[in-house]
Amino acid sequence: MKTIIIIGADGYLGWPTCVHLAANGYRVVAVDNYIKREWERRGGNAPLVPIELLERRVASWNAAHAGKQIDCHIGDVCDPAFVDELLRLYQPEAVIHYGEQRSAPFSMASRRNALETNRNNTTGTLNLLWSIRENAPDCHLIKLGSMGEYGTPDCDIPEGEFEVEFRGRKTVLPFPCQPGSIYHASKVADSTYQRLLARVWNLRITDLNQGVVWGTKIPELEGAKEGFGTVFHYDGTWGTALNRFIAQAVARLPITPYGSGNQTRGFLHLQDTVNCVRIAIENPASPGKMDVVNQFTEQFSVNELAGYVAKLTGAKIARIENPRFESEDHYYKADHQKVLDRGLSPSLLSEQGIRSEYHFVNSNITRINRRLVDPVVKWR
Amino acid sequence: MKTIIIIGADGYLGWPTCVHLAANGYRVVAVDNYIKREWERRGGNAPLVPIELLERRVASWNAAHAGKQIDCHIGDVCDPAFVDELLRLYQPEAVIHYGEQRSAPFSMASRRNALETNRNNTTGTLNLLWSIRENAPDCHLIKLGSMGEYGTPDCDIPEGEFEVEFRGRKTVLPFPCQPGSIYHASKVADSTYQRLLARVWNLRITDLNQGVVWGTKIPELEGAKEGFGTVFHYDGTWGTALNRFIAQAVARLPITPYGSGNQTRGFLHLQDTVNCVRIAIENPASPGKMDVVNQFTEQFSVNELAGYVAKLTGAKIARIENPRFESEDHYYKADHQKVLDRGLSPSLLSEQGIRSEYHFVNSNITRINRRLVDPVVKWR
Repeated sequence: MKTIIIIGADGYLGWPTCVHLAANGYRVVAVDNYIKREWERRGGNAPLVPIELLERRVASWNAAHAGKQIDCHIGDVCDPAFVDELLRLYQPEAVIHYGEQRSAPFSMASRRNALETNRNNTTGTLNLLWSIRENAPDCHLIKLGSMGEYGTPDCDIPEGEFEVEFRGRKTVLPFPCQPGSIYHASKVADSTYQRLLARVWNLRITDLNQGVVWGTKIPELEGAKEGFGTVFHYDGTWGTALNRFIAQAVARLPITPYGSGNQTRGFLHLQDTVNCVRIAIENPASPGKMDVVNQFTEQFSVNELAGYVAKLTGAKIARIENPRFESEDHYYKADHQKVLDRGLSPSLLSEQGIRSEYHFVNSNITRINRRLVDPVVKWR
Repeated sequence: MKTIIIIGADGYLGWPTCVHLAANGYRVVAVDNYIKREWERRGGNAPLVPIELLERRVASWNAAHAGKQIDCHIGDVCDPAFVDELLRLYQPEAVIHYGEQRSAPFSMASRRNALETNRNNTTGTLNLLWSIRENAPDCHLIKLGSMGEYGTPDCDIPEGEFEVEFRGRKTVLPFPCQPGSIYHASKVADSTYQRLLARVWNLRITDLNQGVVWGTKIPELEGAKEGFGTVFHYDGTWGTALNRFIAQAVARLPITPYGSGNQTRGFLHLQDTVNCVRIAIENPASPGKMDVVNQFTEQFSVNELAGYVAKLTGAKIARIENPRFESEDHYYKADHQKVLDRGLSPSLLSEQGIRSEYHFVNSNITRINRRLVDPVVKWR
């Protein structure tokens, strides 16, 4: 039985990944330090439904799945002794590293938040890399990056590298990153460390540059009691675009794309995230060269997404000033061939998918705090 | 009188920059936290000549220069309250940021060193950026980067950006970085934050990607008493190539290029560093777009440098195994037009320059600890 350590297991993607992998025959070690819960409290951004602590969700899952077992450890990916002990103890096949501060608005809200984002993300990744080198050098590090690392260049976005000619010399170079927030820049720093240390220490590293994830449902969480599924945020700090729009529609609020709404991004359903991560485990990177995968399934403009939700729900669309500093009208075409080549069957955006989320949010309509829906953090 | 804050003023480049600017009509504020002295003690890498504390050097300089005044503050660039107070108090024309851990071998020596390098460098830069935004938004940040951020790509290296065609679309992109150590990667992270925040917060930022500096002499330090000049390291951790070779020649040790010695880099004399930084002050970056300058004056292979020193001193050359993980035979051609266009008259490598350093080291020959000369830190 192959062992997989999941760091950031308490999160939106972490917990679904735990149960998906455990159900699919892996021994799962779920790790978190609960720091995101602290950040939520600090900002007053409670999720729609209170979520049980990871330890309780793990205990409940274990009780319901005789013969299968998720292990749970509470600790910090920035702590050398903790991570060393984990890796020595489990000698994992792979480590999935979700353990990062993952909100762009959070990172731009204050100096404290910016410094914490940088510290948590870059120290965590660098500490994990050292720990793998010293304790489990053949283990496969699967790191969650972001499509936002690339920004919106005025050309196609390849998967990590491109061949170009410059002053008469053809060569392959890493594709340059132009992140749009301190959060995204911290992930670029992670990628820089990973690319370097994969090469120098001959490590196996896959960098999953993920698009915007939507949805809360995967088969392995079907029938989970309230608070035992995954977290759903609808606020301007932790909520992703489509999830927020659905909550606005439920609350009879206008759907609010930022600015012109022509910003285009890659999207994927939560189901595809867990499948892509499993596929990454099944396709370990070769030692010595970081494998970069663009992990999304389809591109939409924010207006297209808002339009779908409005059409299905009858909600109105109201433009608000863009709190971010970003191009609103730009070229966008990003490769995402590797996930398809490796066998992903995408769960594309569908009426049924949106309706299912709408139903979930609607059944918790009284819990929506309408003051949380719109963005409060401004980039400038 | 324009005020310039120099962070990292106790260092090899910091102190010469202080006295050069003070002598050239600027009000200088010298800032350091002495952390590099702590790192030297930890590694046992004492400089050739013990150097007086920054405070004592400043006091001595002030005593000798009636009517001119260097201010001195001991504090940490990572400390928000300290940096805020400095910027509020002085409202500087420019901040020169040398306050980084700047040794590649140090950063690769241990996890502790790696994490400290990342923390000190990225937190310091990010904290300084926030502080400038909040307290002195029109001030010009002049940040010392490194030519090592680029690595050794198989094409020309432009100054920060290049125009390329990719799949039929021409566009300008940041030139991709391929750093060769954790230290260099931390500077890439700094550059990423700076490029982002120059744009978002409309800041003035110049990123000086500097080559390898050699020499200890500038006119403003001529006649300085022992311990009141700048630091000279000849060890495998803090010493730069040419400085180390000269110390080896003095100590009747063989000169030891790493590996084949065909590695090529950009070099410049200390005199050019201080001139380039002054020139950067005189040419402030426009708000909103980071200005990247490749700060070196000539390229050499390590073998060429070793050959010059050997020829002048009669020292032997002995190859040693390369402790780093780097290309030893590679293309290298890096632009460095901006410093010339802006008026630098380079102090190129000369027999006289090498002899002058040789004389300085030779007058301290009994202080050379021969066990420090060769590298101890291995990349793998």
